[in-house]
Amino acid sequence: MSSQRLVVIGGDAAGMSAASQARKRQTADSLQVVAFERGHATSYSACGIPYWISGTVGAERDLIARSPQQHRANGIDVRTRTEVVAIDLAARTVHARDLDREREYDEPFDQLVYAAGSIPMRPDVPGIEASGVYGVQTLDDGATLRAELSDDRTRRVVIVGGGYIGLEIAEACQIRGLDVTVVDRSPTPIGTFDPDIGTVIADAIRGIGIDLVLGEPVVEIETGRDGRAVAVRTYAGRRLPADLVVLGLGVRPNVALAAQAGIPLGTSGGIAVDAQMRTRVEGVWAAGDCVESVHRLSGQRVVVALGTHANKQGRVAGINIGGGYATFAGVVGTAVTKVCDLEVARTGLSEAEADAAGLRYVRATVDSTTRAGYFPGAQPIKIKLLAEKRTGRLLGGQIVGREGAAKRIDVLATAIWNEMSVDEVLGMDLSYAPPFAPVWDPVLIAARKAFEAVEADARLTP
Amino acid sequence: MSSQRLVVIGGDAAGMSAASQARKRQTADSLQVVAFERGHATSYSACGIPYWISGTVGAERDLIARSPQQHRANGIDVRTRTEVVAIDLAARTVHARDLDREREYDEPFDQLVYAAGSIPMRPDVPGIEASGVYGVQTLDDGATLRAELSDDRTRRVVIVGGGYIGLEIAEACQIRGLDVTVVDRSPTPIGTFDPDIGTVIADAIRGIGIDLVLGEPVVEIETGRDGRAVAVRTYAGRRLPADLVVLGLGVRPNVALAAQAGIPLGTSGGIAVDAQMRTRVEGVWAAGDCVESVHRLSGQRVVVALGTHANKQGRVAGINIGGGYATFAGVVGTAVTKVCDLEVARTGLSEAEADAAGLRYVRATVDSTTRAGYFPGAQPIKIKLLAEKRTGRLLGGQIVGREGAAKRIDVLATAIWNEMSVDEVLGMDLSYAPPFAPVWDPVLIAARKAFEAVEADARLTP
Repeated sequence: MSSQRLVVIGGDAAGMSAASQARKRQTADSLQVVAFERGHATSYSACGIPYWISGTVGAERDLIARSPQQHRANGIDVRTRTEVVAIDLAARTVHARDLDREREYDEPFDQLVYAAGSIPMRPDVPGIEASGVYGVQTLDDGATLRAELSDDRTRRVVIVGGGYIGLEIAEACQIRGLDVTVVDRSPTPIGTFDPDIGTVIADAIRGIGIDLVLGEPVVEIETGRDGRAVAVRTYAGRRLPADLVVLGLGVRPNVALAAQAGIPLGTSGGIAVDAQMRTRVEGVWAAGDCVESVHRLSGQRVVVALGTHANKQGRVAGINIGGGYATFAGVVGTAVTKVCDLEVARTGLSEAEADAAGLRYVRATVDSTTRAGYFPGAQPIKIKLLAEKRTGRLLGGQIVGREGAAKRIDVLATAIWNEMSVDEVLGMDLSYAPPFAPVWDPVLIAARKAFEAVEADARLTP
Repeated sequence: MSSQRLVVIGGDAAGMSAASQARKRQTADSLQVVAFERGHATSYSACGIPYWISGTVGAERDLIARSPQQHRANGIDVRTRTEVVAIDLAARTVHARDLDREREYDEPFDQLVYAAGSIPMRPDVPGIEASGVYGVQTLDDGATLRAELSDDRTRRVVIVGGGYIGLEIAEACQIRGLDVTVVDRSPTPIGTFDPDIGTVIADAIRGIGIDLVLGEPVVEIETGRDGRAVAVRTYAGRRLPADLVVLGLGVRPNVALAAQAGIPLGTSGGIAVDAQMRTRVEGVWAAGDCVESVHRLSGQRVVVALGTHANKQGRVAGINIGGGYATFAGVVGTAVTKVCDLEVARTGLSEAEADAAGLRYVRATVDSTTRAGYFPGAQPIKIKLLAEKRTGRLLGGQIVGREGAAKRIDVLATAIWNEMSVDEVLGMDLSYAPPFAPVWDPVLIAARKAFEAVEADARLTP
């Protein structure tokens, strides 16, 4: 076999996992691996950026799992500060631009991994491109924002968007002693949570001292004479003065380059891939935030931008490219975050998602404690479950609580993964000792209440 | 239907759960419920006793979920300080002894729940019945030991047995500023853990400042002139001076009364029950520490004395007695404990248990952190997995670590419950954010390594 060339577009989790796995499985004689990265860093924790901004994480280098130098030592030709600006599927080349040397060139490939990640959503309102308005996506974005926040003139920060990233940045700004307001068009923060749980989250965040302006779309970023953002204006006529505006609206898959080249997208807007992470173009693979995944419960295609999926998908692509066999088994919608000492987590389907998927359900919500109620350090935990009518199949779980609450979501995620019913969950042999749980773990209490709701519902409906 | 009488033997978790569930489902006219309890308290957390002894939990009443008065208010005729001394299955009566009034009487029953719990194991060595030697089983035992430990003359405590209860009492004594030695015949503490993990546990416990004397059976409790214990002597000739000796050898099912009455025991020594918690005698049920359960992985019958099972089994018995339908689905061997800031947990089968069940396996052990490695407060976690040869089915998991480590066992317990293979586990959608996990959760890393071990083994074996 003559030497093949693998080109990877994107040097973060998905791209470099693919490159590394392929590299491990083939000799340098049989496979050359070239990876293009627009920024200066590779394999970094994008999810860690808010904690670096807050100062919770000390140094930029702490976020970097593997540097370009380390990848090169492993036989991967990493080209940082080099942007791929076009893909020619017919010629089997990518067109690259070296940002520092202002040089452009074509690089041929036999196999291509598209791992271009995601881009922050920007509302289409006047002033959105003004200076003083920042996204937080890449490590380079983080460095820029960090410098801005250190400026003594920065006192008031308005964050547009109350999802995961918005709230994490809000916490970071609050830790730095800034005056923080989060504005979101939805009536409750983190729209992937049900409104009743969202209300609990909102109350807790306000309790922490972060201002929340909810149910108000942003209509304008007001700029000063120097063209810099000075305030955020909402649909309700509110004016929120801001020394700095941060976009925390979440992200969308960065698929422009792929779409232009003719790599098909799926129904969700992400790149369509099969279980092996193959796109519909021979020899072209995709992984990470830019692809769509199968939601195991709804059967629908979804785009979920999360480092853990990116790593798994990149690994799968790389193993297959390297001649092995691996598949990505889909997602169940698990997510977790922490805002100060508030922990929130979810898995499966929200009410809105279940409705959209045509699934009918009953609800159960319980309040319990993370340890035995009498044990010092016991913290509140609220768990909401959705169970399918009649079958009792667990459809979703949402948790709000304090220390020790959120990671319990993994039990529910595992139960959903296995299509367990809530009465099966109720019987499970979960660990118990007073420092770790009440004698009925909150997960079991919630399952018991959900099961009672399923039974009550069955008695009522014909 | 004329009124039936349900008699319950044992007023803690299993017995009172059964009584309460049956009570809830039947009117007072159709069912009378009488519960006998030898001690003075009902429905208390036996697992919480070590924390009450240590002072971590302030008051005895904190451990009581429901008092006799509360049960009586719910229509259950609770008779505390009353011991059942015989069961006559032919006459359908129990013979009860009122310990305070020194009165004995027969109580008739239609349905009987046997929930007599467990009794501490006592080695058959000279001096074991001496004063100054204490078991810790009931709340009354706890009160006695607490008083003894408060005595200024108590400086040196020797704990016989290095299992869960032994180590929990050891911590309690250490918190009280006493000089603590734990002696155990096994080479590593908590014999249900594999020796390699046990060694890690032993090192950590010694690091906490608790003396461990391992691999030395106790051969004698030496007594002084007043007949009180003064030292523990081991097979190796060691003499451990003791102002107080505590038995922490674990427990065995309290089945004497049932066996005398002719209620059949199972192969494991616990009372044999079916899925509904029926014994083999019509109208006689059993639940809690005195029964045997099905281990879902090995298929074998096992006795596991744990409050969480007792509650579930009592609930199941009570629902069935009350005319409903419920079953107990078995166990997978999950357990957790904490010794100072050391967290240990296990689920599924240990190597010895898998060997005994005829299951062949590969091992994988990984060291990781509870949060992203760069995140403040990240704590060490070690996970060991056993996976079945060829199939890759997850057979067991053991965890040792610090804060945030142990509760991850529940994901493994849920995976084992569902007979997942380690490569399925590796694909799971577990929650990720830097304050909660590395981008590859330690559970996933362990599954990945176990999967690699399964594959490597398959290449080697014909």
